[in-house]
Amino acid sequence: MTGSEATQDSAAVDRSRRRGPPPVCPDFHAAIELIGKRWTGAILVALTDGPLRFGELAKSVPGLSDRLLSQRLRELEDEDLVERTVAPDAPVKVTYALTARGNDLKPAIGALREWARRWKLGKDA
Amino acid sequence: MTGSEATQDSAAVDRSRRRGPPPVCPDFHAAIELIGKRWTGAILVALTDGPLRFGELAKSVPGLSDRLLSQRLRELEDEDLVERTVAPDAPVKVTYALTARGNDLKPAIGALREWARRWKLGKDA
Repeated sequence: MTGSEATQDSAAVDRSRRRGPPPVCPDFHAAIELIGKRWTGAILVALTDGPLRFGELAKSVPGLSDRLLSQRLRELEDEDLVERTVAPDAPVKVTYALTARGNDLKPAIGALREWARRWKLGKDA
Repeated sequence: MTGSEATQDSAAVDRSRRRGPPPVCPDFHAAIELIGKRWTGAILVALTDGPLRFGELAKSVPGLSDRLLSQRLRELEDEDLVERTVAPDAPVKVTYALTARGNDLKPAIGALREWARRWKLGKDA
């Protein structure tokens, strides 16, 4: 081994020591902050049992204003988690439902719900 | 049936119609907003593989300042999700680890991580 190779090897070891654990996967980071945004998780959970009208959704998430509910629903439509359907009846009936991508969140939502129940989180908070 | 009873019955039906779906469970609502808080989810994920020192944690969550990391760690200690251990060595070694309650989040974190990977969330965001 030449002196130069030895230097390169120990530099590589130093770098790997400094590097430490791998960075948290950005997919997960984006996901948790998307569904953890204020009210978003609650809206998604409310829709897990099936489509709801705006007024029904508003009642499912007490404390959420209509204005903010509209805003969150638009964000969830933009993220392709919720779809808005307008039935051409009179009076017009607008419903909100989970998309395939939103529906696929159910196992994660279920697991988190069970954790919250096991640790009685709502009561501590 | 008296007139008064009939009035009461139809009032009850009206109330139940108006009531709509049950409100979202407050436990879940508290849980999702706790772990969805900016950076909190990423810190918890970084600790799922075992205890880390402050500097290692900082490297695991790129973009997070030391000041905000300290603040989030204190919040996570207050919520009994993370515990801080000081080993009486010289130099003093401080490590952060998930508590039993924090560890019990792993299935939920795993499910969300898989969802994020399936839908390539980090790339869209």
